[in-house]
Amino acid sequence: MKVIIVGGVAGGATAAARLRRLDETAEIVVFERSGYVSYANCGLPYYIGGVITDKEELTLQTPESFWQRFRVDMRVRHEVTAIHPAEKTVDVRNLATGETFTESYDKLVLSPGARPTQPALPGVGIDRLFTLRTVEDTLKIREFIEQHHPRSAVLAGGGFIGVELMENLRELGIDVTVVQRPRQLLNPLDADMAAFLHAKLRQKGVRLHLGCTVEGFAANGDRVNVLLKNEAPLTADMVVLAIGVTPDTGLAKAAGLELGIKGSILVNDRMETSAPDIYAVGDAVQVKHFVTGQDTLLSLAGPANKQGRIAADNICGGDSRYPGSQGSSVIKVFDMTIATTGVNEKTAKQAGIDCDKVYLSPMSHAGYYPGGKVMTLKVVFEKGTYRLLGAQIVGYEGVDKRIDVLATAIHAGLSALQLKDLDLAYAPPYSSAKDPVNMAGFMIENLSHGLVEQFFPEDVDALPRDGSVTLLDVRTPGEYADGHAEGFVNLPVDDLRERLREVPVGKPVYVICQSGLRSYIACRILAQQGFKCYNLSGGWRLYETVVR
Amino acid sequence: MKVIIVGGVAGGATAAARLRRLDETAEIVVFERSGYVSYANCGLPYYIGGVITDKEELTLQTPESFWQRFRVDMRVRHEVTAIHPAEKTVDVRNLATGETFTESYDKLVLSPGARPTQPALPGVGIDRLFTLRTVEDTLKIREFIEQHHPRSAVLAGGGFIGVELMENLRELGIDVTVVQRPRQLLNPLDADMAAFLHAKLRQKGVRLHLGCTVEGFAANGDRVNVLLKNEAPLTADMVVLAIGVTPDTGLAKAAGLELGIKGSILVNDRMETSAPDIYAVGDAVQVKHFVTGQDTLLSLAGPANKQGRIAADNICGGDSRYPGSQGSSVIKVFDMTIATTGVNEKTAKQAGIDCDKVYLSPMSHAGYYPGGKVMTLKVVFEKGTYRLLGAQIVGYEGVDKRIDVLATAIHAGLSALQLKDLDLAYAPPYSSAKDPVNMAGFMIENLSHGLVEQFFPEDVDALPRDGSVTLLDVRTPGEYADGHAEGFVNLPVDDLRERLREVPVGKPVYVICQSGLRSYIACRILAQQGFKCYNLSGGWRLYETVVR
Ligand SMILES: Cc1cc2nc3c(=O)[nH]c(=O)nc-3n(C[C@H](O)[C@H](O)[C@H](O)COP(=O)(O)OP(=O)(O)OC[C@H]3O[C@@H](n4cnc5c(N)ncnc54)[C@H](O)[C@@H]3O)c2cc1C
Ligand SMILES: Cc1cc2nc3c(=O)[nH]c(=O)nc-3n(C[C@H](O)[C@H](O)[C@H](O)COP(=O)(O)OP(=O)(O)OC[C@H]3O[C@@H](n4cnc5c(N)ncnc54)[C@H](O)[C@@H]3O)c2cc1C
Ligand SMILES: CC(C)(COP(=O)(O)OP(=O)(O)OC[C@H]1O[C@@H](n2cnc3c(N)ncnc32)[C@H](O)[C@@H]1OP(=O)(O)O)[C@@H](O)C(=O)NCCC(=O)NCCS
Ligand SMILES: CC(C)(COP(=O)(O)OP(=O)(O)OC[C@H]1O[C@@H](n2cnc3c(N)ncnc32)[C@H](O)[C@@H]1OP(=O)(O)O)[C@@H](O)C(=O)NCCC(=O)NCCS
Repeated sequence: MKVIIVGGVAGGATAAARLRRLDETAEIVVFERSGYVSYANCGLPYYIGGVITDKEELTLQTPESFWQRFRVDMRVRHEVTAIHPAEKTVDVRNLATGETFTESYDKLVLSPGARPTQPALPGVGIDRLFTLRTVEDTLKIREFIEQHHPRSAVLAGGGFIGVELMENLRELGIDVTVVQRPRQLLNPLDADMAAFLHAKLRQKGVRLHLGCTVEGFAANGDRVNVLLKNEAPLTADMVVLAIGVTPDTGLAKAAGLELGIKGSILVNDRMETSAPDIYAVGDAVQVKHFVTGQDTLLSLAGPANKQGRIAADNICGGDSRYPGSQGSSVIKVFDMTIATTGVNEKTAKQAGIDCDKVYLSPMSHAGYYPGGKVMTLKVVFEKGTYRLLGAQIVGYEGVDKRIDVLATAIHAGLSALQLKDLDLAYAPPYSSAKDPVNMAGFMIENLSHGLVEQFFPEDVDALPRDGSVTLLDVRTPGEYADGHAEGFVNLPVDDLRERLREVPVGKPVYVICQSGLRSYIACRILAQQGFKCYNLSGGWRLYETVVR
Repeated sequence: MKVIIVGGVAGGATAAARLRRLDETAEIVVFERSGYVSYANCGLPYYIGGVITDKEELTLQTPESFWQRFRVDMRVRHEVTAIHPAEKTVDVRNLATGETFTESYDKLVLSPGARPTQPALPGVGIDRLFTLRTVEDTLKIREFIEQHHPRSAVLAGGGFIGVELMENLRELGIDVTVVQRPRQLLNPLDADMAAFLHAKLRQKGVRLHLGCTVEGFAANGDRVNVLLKNEAPLTADMVVLAIGVTPDTGLAKAAGLELGIKGSILVNDRMETSAPDIYAVGDAVQVKHFVTGQDTLLSLAGPANKQGRIAADNICGGDSRYPGSQGSSVIKVFDMTIATTGVNEKTAKQAGIDCDKVYLSPMSHAGYYPGGKVMTLKVVFEKGTYRLLGAQIVGYEGVDKRIDVLATAIHAGLSALQLKDLDLAYAPPYSSAKDPVNMAGFMIENLSHGLVEQFFPEDVDALPRDGSVTLLDVRTPGEYADGHAEGFVNLPVDDLRERLREVPVGKPVYVICQSGLRSYIACRILAQQGFKCYNLSGGWRLYETVVR
């Protein structure tokens, strides 16, 4: 059997290694357009920032080591230029020599990945305008920085790659401005959760131009002008374009393979394309979203690796199935960690799912043990069924842990009500006896039993201030004095029972505290006295960050 | 409704708080024998070690704050001395005044916890012999240390509390010797995993007397002699007895409640005891093991908190059920983290479960990103069904995360084969594209497909050295020279295909590498050439730690 693989990185290299482990006799040839195989795409921004110091660290294998260990013929600087499914051949160009040739295959695996999206804007392609995908791109940016010592950079785009680059450029002392068309960074977050990120970035001196559209670029001597819609242009010493990625599927399209969203390759759960004996994996393929069941694109290394292994299994006569992607992801942003799994609220709503949510702000570990930090956790679930839809966490230590627990719960089909039962490991340096994930479960159970009703930050400003409803802030007078929502009256929770007469009978009560916990207790006191009351989900902490 | 609660800490205080949230009108009285409520048992060792500096940090609530927030009448230094289920009363002694009185209840919650086990040995009770359970015990030890500056300590017992104390005493510069009857510390670990802990402790200068029985204690001037079976006595400036805990259920027994293992209180999954309107929770109760279904005792704060909340729910007319305990636990030992969930191999075997296991030693996060550390992960599963039984991890960063993911998988009933599919969040500072938990899943799948067969460290020394089998070490010559198992011949994996003629045909081959990964690849090469071969699970790394 002769297997040809297009692309020698996450999906392709994994498929090659697995193929060899399954079949000693197969002939395995990998064509890789760039000069490197098995490179750590995800590490590239950190090489630019100098966190990863050694270039060798960026490649997990070389063509030589791959040959030694796996007898895989890894041909770098070889571009596959056409696929002929009927003939079962591919055309290849050796980019070093210009030579072209044709190779036959019994099985073909496409793992060509995705390219940085290049909008059709004036000035795309000029000097000092960079994109980041390959080792070569990385070396180019790093050399530029070393030679030209740019003092300012504009990042067009604020997705994962943009934000990682931003951090690394900032850590080099470069003045960074991010321009982003949506009004928030990191699209997998809901806007409310992204607000915590925006606050951190501003604190770190990053300039944010949100809701702002780039209309083009122009060289300006040694600098670049970034032209904006309805705004004065920005000028910087360098620009990076990171507005997203597009499946690199020109080949597949030309070969007549069935395509999906944004030209991605259609595959079934065995990673088979529409053409016999052609498999495709990684960023180039359309996947089924594990939560919504909808078709989607997700550019993540975990799925690419898993899919590469599955394709290899099936090529060797196995029956491995990809269950769909949940989009679990995590990113470090300075000292912050941000992570998501499943769908966010806006996506759930777009998918027509009737959803509800809780926000909480637990400590990463027991408050009495030094070093704990507050995280903000949002869990989204389906109304009525309590099906877990997704979670987002912004914080520091322990964020990655809770997202992986929630990802596992979603994968296993646990309901949001079962989160309270999870038997998680507790000692003071690691967690609390009621882990944040358990706590989310308690809160959701309380909603399900009607013990409390919620209102949300976006509702606060619209509440009537005409005396028809009561607006209570149950924090301490000191906290209240430090800042409170207009129209809310201070009545500390611990005084509520004694001062109950001050709460007008017969009017709904909206209760605020710092995190939502004390106001929940206040709501319980009030509800049992016959008041109709609502707890501000996420508390003043969330309101202040999101609305102000 | 009048509710009396015995014990005002993890289970009791949580029940009280939840009761009040559910019922504003209930009269809630908590009797607590010690001088403190809501104290952080789990933080006590860290106060002794000076990690937690402020005594106030040890109590999450005081009787005053509990009254203010919850209108719960918390009576410290009050011991309940008898329960009269027929009369629905309890007898109480005010330990401050000596006064005794009787209180009636409608509902009674027992959360008396567990006492340090006090063996009937000569010398138990002498000065300078301490146990650790309450804030008072903690202050006593700390005062002793501050006044007497002990230079040496013997710890009798090496469970969680013993090991935490040991670390904290060691960090104070005290010479610590641990005496432990079993041949290992931390019983939830299998002996092989405990070996990593032992190595770390020896490196930190802790003296270990394993497999050694304490026969008594004797004052020796300002010091204490610890008498040992078949060994010379040890002498130290202080001794702590931490050989385990026993349910503190004298009360329950005297009241005629049905009891279980070690005198623990029998409860159903609603936390109801055998007597009407009496509930019991926490360390004092027998629970069903979530994995084995067997009755067991587990002294952990998470379950105590959850059970307290469940008892409160049911008292208020709800129907909350405790699904059983998995024994998930984690402990910091110097810079190391050790965690377990479910059952270990020895317990599974005792429970008559036919089990198998994998060992792996993945990095905590991507190898190319600075700071990653190797962890050792053992996953135990049922043969044939691939039911997940338990996991143990010893390492540094990221251990607590993987144990919680595995705990969630076990709770959700995922099979070991599904671990490979988990969609976990990956970025270089947090994980690898193939997370350690996924990797365990790949390895188990390979076993299930017969792609590889394993042998284990305990088998190595017993393998024939008479030429009837081939013993191969496929690491590099350098690694081999640094240390190898007797009789194993070096043949690096990357040379194996060319030097295949050196492997005698027709004999089984036992293959070793450092972690098990390269030897797995070697096994795949050999198996496809018709060799019957076995991969050393866990590799030289595990063998060296366990057997040597
Ligand atoms: C800067 C950066 C940071 C990232 N960070 C993370 C992260 O933290 N976490 C995460 O989960 N994911 C991250 N990703 C995404 C992750 O790297 C991808 O999801 C993953 O690499 C996709 O694997 P793939 O095999 O589909 O494509 P790739 O790994 O991109 O490999 C595709 C390869 O195919 C080659 N190729 C394309 N067409 C041809 C052709 N016609 N002939 C020959 N060769 C061809 C390309 O040169 C490329 O090297 C990051 C990506 C980048 C660029
Ligand atoms: C040093 C130490 C470290 C620990 N570390 C961890 C850890 O890291 N992780 C973890 O999960 N668990 C840990 N634990 C265990 C955890 O603290 C217990 O599982 C948990 O506290 C049990 O809760 P409980 O309510 O059953 O008992 P407790 O919290 O012990 O409370 C019982 C209370 O009842 C009182 N009482 C008993 N009898 C009477 C009576 N007759 N009248 C009045 N009062 C009475 C006692 O004085 C005691 O204060 C640790 C325990 C200790 C001692
Ligand atoms: C380097 C690369 C080729 C490695 O591929 P690989 O050999 O499949 O992966 P690993 O080295 O992690 O080894 C995994 C294999 O070892 C096995 N294994 C791991 N530890 C083991 C152990 N202790 N004992 C036995 N087997 C073990 C696993 O089961 C798996 O084998 P399988 O797929 O046959 O089941 C590929 O991952 C790669 O190119 N990565 C870089 C590109 C990339 O992923 N970029 C995006 C992220 S930055
Ligand atoms: C201090 C103590 C009394 C607190 O008990 P508690 O009030 O039940 O617990 P918490 O303060 O964590 O609050 C949890 C409650 O707030 C709710 N909550 C938490 N965050 C919330 C938020 N942001 N919005 C709304 N509700 C929230 C939870 O749902 C839960 O309420 P519920 O049980 O009615 O569902 C008790 O935990 C205790 O005594 N602990 C110390 C002893 C101990 O546990 N020792 C062993 C470990 S060291």
